[in-house]
Amino acid sequence: MAFEKITRAQDYSKWYNNLVENADLAQHSSVRGCMVIKPYGYAIWEKMQAELDQRFKETGHQNAYFPLFVPKSLFEAEEKNAEGFAKECAVVTHYRLENDPDNSGKLRVDPNAKLEEELVVRPTSEAIIWNTYKGWIQSYRDLPILVNQWANVVRWEMRTRLFLRTAEFLWQEGHTAHATRQEAVEETNQMIQVYSEFAKNVLAIPTIMGTKTESERFAGADDTLCIEGLMQDGKALQMGTSHFLGQNFAKAFDVKYTNKEGKLDHVWATSWGVSTRLMGALIMSHSDDEGLVLPPSIAPIQVVVIPIYRGLEQLEIISETIQPIIDRLEKKGITVKFDDRDTHKPGFKFAEWELKGVPVRIAIGPRDIENGTVEVARRDTKIKQVLAITDIDINVEHLLKAMQEEIYLNALNFRDNHITLVNTWDEFVDVLENKTGFISAHWDGNEETEDKIKEMTKATIRCIPFDNPKEEGSCILTGNPSSQRVLFAKAY
Amino acid sequence: MAFEKITRAQDYSKWYNNLVENADLAQHSSVRGCMVIKPYGYAIWEKMQAELDQRFKETGHQNAYFPLFVPKSLFEAEEKNAEGFAKECAVVTHYRLENDPDNSGKLRVDPNAKLEEELVVRPTSEAIIWNTYKGWIQSYRDLPILVNQWANVVRWEMRTRLFLRTAEFLWQEGHTAHATRQEAVEETNQMIQVYSEFAKNVLAIPTIMGTKTESERFAGADDTLCIEGLMQDGKALQMGTSHFLGQNFAKAFDVKYTNKEGKLDHVWATSWGVSTRLMGALIMSHSDDEGLVLPPSIAPIQVVVIPIYRGLEQLEIISETIQPIIDRLEKKGITVKFDDRDTHKPGFKFAEWELKGVPVRIAIGPRDIENGTVEVARRDTKIKQVLAITDIDINVEHLLKAMQEEIYLNALNFRDNHITLVNTWDEFVDVLENKTGFISAHWDGNEETEDKIKEMTKATIRCIPFDNPKEEGSCILTGNPSSQRVLFAKAY
Repeated sequence: MAFEKITRAQDYSKWYNNLVENADLAQHSSVRGCMVIKPYGYAIWEKMQAELDQRFKETGHQNAYFPLFVPKSLFEAEEKNAEGFAKECAVVTHYRLENDPDNSGKLRVDPNAKLEEELVVRPTSEAIIWNTYKGWIQSYRDLPILVNQWANVVRWEMRTRLFLRTAEFLWQEGHTAHATRQEAVEETNQMIQVYSEFAKNVLAIPTIMGTKTESERFAGADDTLCIEGLMQDGKALQMGTSHFLGQNFAKAFDVKYTNKEGKLDHVWATSWGVSTRLMGALIMSHSDDEGLVLPPSIAPIQVVVIPIYRGLEQLEIISETIQPIIDRLEKKGITVKFDDRDTHKPGFKFAEWELKGVPVRIAIGPRDIENGTVEVARRDTKIKQVLAITDIDINVEHLLKAMQEEIYLNALNFRDNHITLVNTWDEFVDVLENKTGFISAHWDGNEETEDKIKEMTKATIRCIPFDNPKEEGSCILTGNPSSQRVLFAKAY
Repeated sequence: MAFEKITRAQDYSKWYNNLVENADLAQHSSVRGCMVIKPYGYAIWEKMQAELDQRFKETGHQNAYFPLFVPKSLFEAEEKNAEGFAKECAVVTHYRLENDPDNSGKLRVDPNAKLEEELVVRPTSEAIIWNTYKGWIQSYRDLPILVNQWANVVRWEMRTRLFLRTAEFLWQEGHTAHATRQEAVEETNQMIQVYSEFAKNVLAIPTIMGTKTESERFAGADDTLCIEGLMQDGKALQMGTSHFLGQNFAKAFDVKYTNKEGKLDHVWATSWGVSTRLMGALIMSHSDDEGLVLPPSIAPIQVVVIPIYRGLEQLEIISETIQPIIDRLEKKGITVKFDDRDTHKPGFKFAEWELKGVPVRIAIGPRDIENGTVEVARRDTKIKQVLAITDIDINVEHLLKAMQEEIYLNALNFRDNHITLVNTWDEFVDVLENKTGFISAHWDGNEETEDKIKEMTKATIRCIPFDNPKEEGSCILTGNPSSQRVLFAKAY
């Protein structure tokens, strides 16, 4: 693997791009802004999907599937939502190609196959889903509707980056309908908690839960909750959002229900989603200059076994010794890869699995067999131990658990050290430029102020954290009175 | 559920449409030809996905994800493939909407946001994938590539039917690359076997494996293998295909590899897929006039428990009695739903779960509790038994296994009774019109003859079955010599 070695300190952005490509996670495609998710990257995404899907089902949700296309007239029904996404919509205008008469062997759009109404490739599915829910909901007995969809969506972004911002991405979008405001608010809260717990326990990423300011809200929402992570370069990353949509979509699509008293009312709504963007968060939370570092809970391969041998006879002895160990590990639900490729040397394999972030490496050679030992190396700290082959399965199981915890605590420690309270504009700019991370500062609650700060520094208000203490102060920019601090950061 | 009751004998097609909608499997959307897959239908599809995905992984495949869009210039590279799909392509021409100046609150396509090159919404992904594989393959060490994708695809069909033929559908498409012709041929065969085994053991549908004639081949393939099922109305349904693509895509996209001897050669390819069409096959293989009949292996709910009670006190006693039974069933991996909705009467529930095809219904009332019994009804035969509550979990487990087997045998029996050998044109037309099903008949191997038969009768050659015995005969239409029989049928 003769890759150009770029460290995080040299160029974090280039390091990220290299890592994504070199670790076989994803690559650019020949379609502007669209990525190919390679098998190794997709295997990580599949683990995320499985963990999230289980949580959705445990909280009473079912999956369904709605059309990829949204007719323009439906798309524009909820005006704020439409306005928010109109500028980045891929639009289908024709339904047929024909042979190009001027260019043999080539095709062109058939001008006679123009659609009567253009179709928008979904940038999000509220419109098509609420238009469907209209037919599903008559009375309170039909509520709540708790539905999730795993799907691809398209937002025609001008500047794209693998996983972080791509024209097409994969996500899940929950869309729920409720009889009461309170129930919808509770659902909105529940789902941001689900995301936060998943980020913590599976991705080993600490997040801050909070509310977005009005200007950062989802287009069409009354309230947007979010989880914000902090990447190693001190920039924040929005990892998931949960929207309280009020009755906005019910009104736009005329979705009413009869309550127990026989009265008609509009239905209350939420929507919530996370996307392949989480892959970016995972990479930028834990990895190092040697490559990916995966928390065991999300690693498609948790343990790689590398035989050190000369000749097939030695390999056979090693295989015979290690196979019962592998079986025991697998019986514990641990995913093991025995890398017995004869085409590559151990050194190459060590570097490759390091690059790919496999949490634990077991190396075993003839000397180990004599001594009844193996060498166990952990990816995160790179600490190696020589351990007795007996009980190695129990030791590895404990090690994986400890690593999961420690990787989280490291990220938490980094994050906590990068929340800085500041009280003046100079401090604000200084921390933003030099220390980076989240800045807890007073803001006067004015959208204009927010815009000005963004313009001057590129910092945005990431959220107003839950349980934010009330505290009198003055806005760092305007000096106007403020009743609470909010969290600023530069963000992806 | 005040549905218009249509029996299969009255109008099979209408019966099918009603069932799909009434059993909450899918519905039409406001996008022409696109369906909404409802939660209950999607739960069945998820079970299909899980079973197939496991089989793909067991045979060494990994999942990945490739872009939704194919630039026109890539799409047209493999000419036969392009020609085959050009007439049904949704085409993205613009990437932005703008406010319509003539129509306040409405949007229109922004004429300044025209794409330089149109994007085809993938009708199948060979083009985009082989363009990607070009970068993945240099030497024989990079082969084989064994990749599958779960995705949505769009084919602008003029006549659509829920699940059977929709403009957008969900599918999986395997795309593999090999160093040798033989390996690719073996892969093509392996995957059709996987589909056939899945159809048999999970969907309880017997299929005939065979080869398509040239005119029925996938556009761009050298050979197309298929599994064909027989629906209750005597029409065939193509349930899955596996294509040997030869070097066609490797040549179109210039994908070469260096073999062990250092020589350059084009790579060999396969692709294979099944889609949400399988939902249609499942419905039309087993269901009856009361609704869906699901083989236990694919049922999202395998057992429904319905309490017969008056007043909450009785319900409580029933709940307490039945809960340990439910726990024991669930411990055996059986999915159970306890339908204790207070809003509906038992009769309503019986009909609803019958409509939804839940394999086993357990009813329990106060009398049962006195007697230590429950009533167990199976969905397929509607036979009811009163059984002792002790060991009910073991009895139900056995029952589910027996039902899976019997549902398959019934379908097999029907299918086998609907393969008719005919030797004359009159017989052919008679069987086609009256008995229906597969017809095994001689054909002269000529494409013109095939077309003529299709034109005259709507029957197509479904396949040349594997291990077809050689047998001299004369073509039913032309009387020309033929060396083997082929299978004709009218088909979906």
